[in-house]
Amino acid sequence: MRLICISGSFTHGNTMKKLEKLNLSHYGHDFLRTWDKSIDHLKATLAVAQTLRDFHRQGISPKVFTSGIAVSIFRDKSTRTKYSYAAATNLLGLEIEDLDEKKSQIAHGETIMETVNMLSFLTRTIGIRDDIFLGVGHQYMVEVAKAADWGYAQGVLDKRPSVINLQSDEDHPTQSLSDLLHLVNYFGGLDKLRGKNLTMSWAYSPSYGKPLSVPQGVIALLTRFGMNVTLAYPKEYNLIPEIESYADQQAKKSKGSFRITNDMKEAFNGADIVYPKSWASYDVMNQRTKLFKIKDDKGLERLEHEALVQNAKHKDWTCTEKLMKQTHQGKALYMHCLPADISGVSCKEGEVEARVFEVYKKQTYTQAGYKPFIVAAMMLLTQFGEKTPKILATCSDPQFYSRRSFRV
Amino acid sequence: MRLICISGSFTHGNTMKKLEKLNLSHYGHDFLRTWDKSIDHLKATLAVAQTLRDFHRQGISPKVFTSGIAVSIFRDKSTRTKYSYAAATNLLGLEIEDLDEKKSQIAHGETIMETVNMLSFLTRTIGIRDDIFLGVGHQYMVEVAKAADWGYAQGVLDKRPSVINLQSDEDHPTQSLSDLLHLVNYFGGLDKLRGKNLTMSWAYSPSYGKPLSVPQGVIALLTRFGMNVTLAYPKEYNLIPEIESYADQQAKKSKGSFRITNDMKEAFNGADIVYPKSWASYDVMNQRTKLFKIKDDKGLERLEHEALVQNAKHKDWTCTEKLMKQTHQGKALYMHCLPADISGVSCKEGEVEARVFEVYKKQTYTQAGYKPFIVAAMMLLTQFGEKTPKILATCSDPQFYSRRSFRV
Amino acid sequence: MRLICISGSFTHGNTMKKLEKLNLSHYGHDFLRTWDKSIDHLKATLAVAQTLRDFHRQGISPKVFTSGIAVSIFRDKSTRTKYSYAAATNLLGLEIEDLDEKKSQIAHGETIMETVNMLSFLTRTIGIRDDIFLGVGHQYMVEVAKAADWGYAQGVLDKRPSVINLQSDEDHPTQSLSDLLHLVNYFGGLDKLRGKNLTMSWAYSPSYGKPLSVPQGVIALLTRFGMNVTLAYPKEYNLIPEIESYADQQAKKSKGSFRITNDMKEAFNGADIVYPKSWASYDVMNQRTKLFKIKDDKGLERLEHEALVQNAKHKDWTCTEKLMKQTHQGKALYMHCLPADISGVSCKEGEVEARVFEVYKKQTYTQAGYKPFIVAAMMLLTQFGEKTPKILATCSDPQFYSRRSFRV
Repeated sequence: MRLICISGSFTHGNTMKKLEKLNLSHYGHDFLRTWDKSIDHLKATLAVAQTLRDFHRQGISPKVFTSGIAVSIFRDKSTRTKYSYAAATNLLGLEIEDLDEKKSQIAHGETIMETVNMLSFLTRTIGIRDDIFLGVGHQYMVEVAKAADWGYAQGVLDKRPSVINLQSDEDHPTQSLSDLLHLVNYFGGLDKLRGKNLTMSWAYSPSYGKPLSVPQGVIALLTRFGMNVTLAYPKEYNLIPEIESYADQQAKKSKGSFRITNDMKEAFNGADIVYPKSWASYDVMNQRTKLFKIKDDKGLERLEHEALVQNAKHKDWTCTEKLMKQTHQGKALYMHCLPADISGVSCKEGEVEARVFEVYKKQTYTQAGYKPFIVAAMMLLTQFGEKTPKILATCSDPQFYSRRSFRV
Repeated sequence: MRLICISGSFTHGNTMKKLEKLNLSHYGHDFLRTWDKSIDHLKATLAVAQTLRDFHRQGISPKVFTSGIAVSIFRDKSTRTKYSYAAATNLLGLEIEDLDEKKSQIAHGETIMETVNMLSFLTRTIGIRDDIFLGVGHQYMVEVAKAADWGYAQGVLDKRPSVINLQSDEDHPTQSLSDLLHLVNYFGGLDKLRGKNLTMSWAYSPSYGKPLSVPQGVIALLTRFGMNVTLAYPKEYNLIPEIESYADQQAKKSKGSFRITNDMKEAFNGADIVYPKSWASYDVMNQRTKLFKIKDDKGLERLEHEALVQNAKHKDWTCTEKLMKQTHQGKALYMHCLPADISGVSCKEGEVEARVFEVYKKQTYTQAGYKPFIVAAMMLLTQFGEKTPKILATCSDPQFYSRRSFRV
Repeated sequence: MRLICISGSFTHGNTMKKLEKLNLSHYGHDFLRTWDKSIDHLKATLAVAQTLRDFHRQGISPKVFTSGIAVSIFRDKSTRTKYSYAAATNLLGLEIEDLDEKKSQIAHGETIMETVNMLSFLTRTIGIRDDIFLGVGHQYMVEVAKAADWGYAQGVLDKRPSVINLQSDEDHPTQSLSDLLHLVNYFGGLDKLRGKNLTMSWAYSPSYGKPLSVPQGVIALLTRFGMNVTLAYPKEYNLIPEIESYADQQAKKSKGSFRITNDMKEAFNGADIVYPKSWASYDVMNQRTKLFKIKDDKGLERLEHEALVQNAKHKDWTCTEKLMKQTHQGKALYMHCLPADISGVSCKEGEVEARVFEVYKKQTYTQAGYKPFIVAAMMLLTQFGEKTPKILATCSDPQFYSRRSFRV
């Protein structure tokens, strides 16, 4: 036991030292979008997640909470992120309380202010997925955060619970930071990403209405670290314009580059990393929000039909072995947030050929495996801010550790 | 850490001393109705809840269970109480196992005896909400308790799990005791409530079939502490007659008073506390039970329609600014168990004007915030009885505390 | 506290010593079927379960995990087994994460490989109930185990989670081992079962499609310990032929006996133990699988109707007081996995007369009460293998225990 812990301290030494050098002030009580955070905040999130990942491998427990609730609100289906949130919660010593809006009294008119306060008396984090309607999800999270601010300021709540974005209409930060941590480990460091060519490309899928937040999250985050980011999509499939502009500005600032193309084949040329993934067209997403607001169910049905027809015009946007050969040395890293629509496996024609996916299966699973630790890192940093490094150090202190726990 | 704990011991000193002077014998294995408990039992419940509330503020963990299950059975929708039960469970170290009757094998004929025993092998508490049908909910809880008695006596169960009423057709003790603890803290002591005028009034709501247990719980509990309780409702909206009689007797016994009026305006005159809240008419509730028993779905639909029409005759029963001015110095404390039907916010016309609710928002939220601690207090007292004060004292002992835990 | 623990050490001494003499090597990462395990593995499972049962009575906590997830996948309704899995999970320090296939993104084509890995990053056990279709459930569990093997070998997973069968189409090992542990305690030892006559008999029930895995599990397990096992059913209600053959072979090997009869009355003659329970006919189960695979919903409906008609021909297969009198000294132990279809209680005509069930109620509940401990024993042995006895010994070491915990 002692040996494990001591070796733990050694291997974490470097990450921990890096963490101490970062400016963690103003990390904030919530994690809603990567673009609300400084570069140091993002680096800290990666460093804490990596430390927790290493702790887990070495049997060191970061169970820093004795008790406490982690509320979850899922307004869209989820397997991976729901598991990641549950696992992170458990790892740190909190417990999930899921708000099932159908089984609760959350009625037409109950205010967000009230719901949030009622669910926060002993709560440390509120994780939310609300990604279906453009202009809705992020706004909801902001209101939840404001309600928590009010309750804490008024003394209704003893603690300010952290609001954590588990996918909104704008960003999917637990995904994009898992993606980034995967790249850091794959290429051997954050610095090694500078100058690498990453292609985030639309790809065909027979399904309807996939959110824009994964590609938005990827371009908004990776342009901040000096990468050459190419965003490829058929003409109608642009992302939220403001986020495309933000990516462009950040690329300039970080001395990387950002460009948009409507040619998937060209976008794969010389890429070091490719991320081919389907999303709904921007126009469809906007129409959907409008129809939803006026409760036009028939209109929504018609829109779904039209969108599928529109998608089907672009079946050639698929990640083939042939395309992969055009990438840098034919060996680009293939990424996906999963589940991928694999041609001949999960659908007839989809985002990627089975042979390509099979080669990178281990890599995509590894990419997904960072998410519980990214979520846990967000929980620690939003709750403890600048005290986080000290708390982590205590976890790997063998004397402290042996006193608290038996076996992870 | 040490400092926090020591300060904890100091501030709790008074409450703890009070607790030691109370007669906790025969507290009982269950908490079904406040009128099954002695005054000392009720005072102890408040004192333990207050101590747990203070512990939480000061970062002292009362995690007295290493493991154990807290079964929950919700036969009606719930947000606040479900959260409170989950939070209390987690605070003390237990874990929720929800009985979802739809996903279980609980078939037509499976006996309560069997279900209860099957769900109790490692269980410490069973929390139940069953408030829809008059004559059903409380009776169900009594049978659950009897089944637990049998299993424990037979050696089928190692422990006798506590049955905790999370709202029945008769009482809602976690609500009424939260209400009382709020009053104690608002007015500065249980003794300060003696002679205060509390008006529990019916109010209009556009919704159907709200249980009677909140007003019943309030009048049955608060008449025991020397308050002058006025119960106001339109003629058809009386409560269970036996509970109205009980309130009357208790008021006499405690040297307070109890009266019923059919005039909301008059009832607000000079009130120190007002609790305007909707409930179904007694007649409708009785008809509903009968129709339910003969499975007359059409009859139930018709009844709902009739009830809403009946309610709508009393739209003037609403808590307005004007009415509030009639209260003692125009400053009565407004109470609500939440969610309130707020006119212009959660419905067109409802129980309370938005401007009144807004003034007391912080107070109603604070009132709700006692519930997790009331539930936890019931768990401790039903499980540990007279040993409870000693167990609580150990939690705030810094040496013990530092050995067990890291951070709340 | 100290006294409790010391007494714990004393009473467990014998069981613990027995455990140390067993060969625990190759216990395996999963528990899918009792016939995949050696006699020593089975004895160890019983011994560990008994130790955990005793620990619970004496307030000794076996909370060996600091954190970790226990995934549950229930493809059929469950009350008892779901509770048992939850309670075992909590007892050892893990936390349930239920995969609700309806709320997740588990789509038509997502591979088991992917789902399993995505749900296993911080997971220690995966409990699965999949018992509806012959040829499906066990196969699914094998594929889950293979996916976990792959993920662990590839370094995607830090730990190999244990797959635990919570009822498949072939076996129901948590049930059959609970049944066996009940017999061991009832008759005073595993050796005392040698030569005892056990009758596993089909019985009439008005319900449709009960799995074959309970009777299969019972005959496959109990024939390995020198019992004389009689399997009785109406002609069409045979079990999977390979499992009947296996039971026959094992009976010979263990110097017990195994026979099949189509006469319930004869089967009860001289029995020491009777286990009358309904199951679907083998032919119906096979047809059901075929209709399910071609999605013939009308065919499935028709089959259900036919099956109920077929069942109803055998209403005389019921456990009566009269039949019980034919057993050894009229005092055979009546067993049931619960819930039983009790004539006049849970149905008009069913598996057992109310008067018989009532006499053995305490016994059947006690039988059910071993299941949480059997599940926990499987978790410990699949996760820790040969280290399990040492870990258990540490739990009852008073010094260690007092350092970790406060109260069970």
